[in-house]
Amino acid sequence: MQTIFFNNKPKIVATGTIAGPKESAGVVGRYVDKTLTDDMYGETTYEKAECKMLSYAIAQAIQNAGLTEQDVDLLISGDLLNQIISASFAARDFDFPFLGVYGACSTMAESMAVGAAFVNAGYHKKVVAATGSHFSSAERQYRYPLELGTTRPPQSQWTVTGAGGVLIADMGASNGYPAITAATFGRVVDYGITDVNNMGAAMAPACMDVLLNHLRDTGRKARDYDLIVTGDLGALGSRILKDLTWEKGVDIQPNHVDCGEIVYNVIEDEFQGGSGAGCSALVFNAYIMDKIKKRELNRVLFVATGALLSTVSSGQGESIPCIAHAVVIENEV
Amino acid sequence: MQTIFFNNKPKIVATGTIAGPKESAGVVGRYVDKTLTDDMYGETTYEKAECKMLSYAIAQAIQNAGLTEQDVDLLISGDLLNQIISASFAARDFDFPFLGVYGACSTMAESMAVGAAFVNAGYHKKVVAATGSHFSSAERQYRYPLELGTTRPPQSQWTVTGAGGVLIADMGASNGYPAITAATFGRVVDYGITDVNNMGAAMAPACMDVLLNHLRDTGRKARDYDLIVTGDLGALGSRILKDLTWEKGVDIQPNHVDCGEIVYNVIEDEFQGGSGAGCSALVFNAYIMDKIKKRELNRVLFVATGALLSTVSSGQGESIPCIAHAVVIENEV
Repeated sequence: MQTIFFNNKPKIVATGTIAGPKESAGVVGRYVDKTLTDDMYGETTYEKAECKMLSYAIAQAIQNAGLTEQDVDLLISGDLLNQIISASFAARDFDFPFLGVYGACSTMAESMAVGAAFVNAGYHKKVVAATGSHFSSAERQYRYPLELGTTRPPQSQWTVTGAGGVLIADMGASNGYPAITAATFGRVVDYGITDVNNMGAAMAPACMDVLLNHLRDTGRKARDYDLIVTGDLGALGSRILKDLTWEKGVDIQPNHVDCGEIVYNVIEDEFQGGSGAGCSALVFNAYIMDKIKKRELNRVLFVATGALLSTVSSGQGESIPCIAHAVVIENEV
Repeated sequence: MQTIFFNNKPKIVATGTIAGPKESAGVVGRYVDKTLTDDMYGETTYEKAECKMLSYAIAQAIQNAGLTEQDVDLLISGDLLNQIISASFAARDFDFPFLGVYGACSTMAESMAVGAAFVNAGYHKKVVAATGSHFSSAERQYRYPLELGTTRPPQSQWTVTGAGGVLIADMGASNGYPAITAATFGRVVDYGITDVNNMGAAMAPACMDVLLNHLRDTGRKARDYDLIVTGDLGALGSRILKDLTWEKGVDIQPNHVDCGEIVYNVIEDEFQGGSGAGCSALVFNAYIMDKIKKRELNRVLFVATGALLSTVSSGQGESIPCIAHAVVIENEV
């Protein structure tokens, strides 16, 4: 049994989101709290801009919940930069404790799951879970200096510039908010993919693994969810996921959407779509949560996926181990 | 209130530890499960050796508990390498879910706290929390290539080559095992230190912050603990911690020990002592836990400290934000 259940129904009280210029032109543009016209966000480096976005998302989630910094018990966050400096330096801006997590692009689901687990157990009343990413800081850390103008292969994805945070709270018996009712922590799955430009293919098996385990643990079918939202598999990775689950007798086709596949309007340089910890953070917290709050969606399975590689592991000839974590968000009926 | 309490008393059933050659010559040498004569551990790179040590510690903790891989519900782990590849690749060796965390050298306390929280809440029955580090992989990632033979300044510490894991389980009413009874997650504290060779000075204020908050939350005095074990402040950092807490009216002098200060026998190249995620993992899980199991110590406060910098943040002129997490381990009387 990989799935844990939250019978006290920790609530998602509010979200906070911020999107870069390219992302703001996409589907999330109308739903985010702040759109940036300058991806430097007034800072001198991409890393500082990424950190500032994350800090904004955290503060905005708190503000949108009608709360202040003093009300918050814990921040759970992580990001793609070495030593998760965006999260650590963002946490420095706030006066509450910090729990650093790392799940690459699965961080949004991971931090939500841990936050819901802590609130459900009564350890904390109010927790913020947040993450983000920045195209330019990710490119120069994981790939090449932007100045090189390196050609991107068609199987590649585009790291999202944006951040999202969610405020999870014990709201007692009040049922006006969507609740996080269960979570499934994933196993590390490695199908031997070594192409660092093909994250979708690397992550799809881990996504399938946690999805099948979640459905087995809960005794549910894929169709029991209004929507299964996967995190940044991209177009190719989503096709692979559908194939893999279909082979296992699970048809997710009718109610599946992938954050990476839908985050950008026009498939141009982005090829397979978006990626990065900010991708699912942005799409889920802005776009999907809006539909949940409007009760257009009432039971959603959010499965964020992460590729657990580094430039060192790839340089030493390793394949790409991947992970995915699943979180159930439900409106009370 | 930063402290959370575990009334169901999750138990530390067993630990698993492995130490490098230099570490094996020190105080932990007699207590670890495995001592290495070759810090490459039969691998071709330092990073692979680090990962293999961590994998060993996890497997050994499970074996020492008389369990098998199938009994374990979750691994909580992280490490110092970019994108925590030691933990992620070690997790690939096992068939249970993985929760990646990052707290730099505070990771042992952080992962133990999360593990105890999950077991206490009934989400999982058996969890492994583990971390490790390797001198040579840390040097080349954070500092200089070893081949340069760079002179080390006297305020520096030596990254420990070693790993430690702990198996935390719900053992019902049985009281033969030490229990984790509380944890305090720390805040990010930054006193403006920019010297990346002086981690002890950077981390001491964060350690003081969580220590004072823990004592306030629990209504305890420092002397209520048989021992307060801090993680890798080193000799200089420990002196600073004692000064800082003394100024706040708390005297930890009579019952304080620092993992970094005691891990090496001879202060030579190591100057202020040991550091690295493996430092407190090794000293706590091998040496301190032995004294707890023998009931020479019955109530211990374990406070592991972490410096949340990266080479990029330092290169961009940032100071070093730090954190510390505290865990209470008690024998039932």
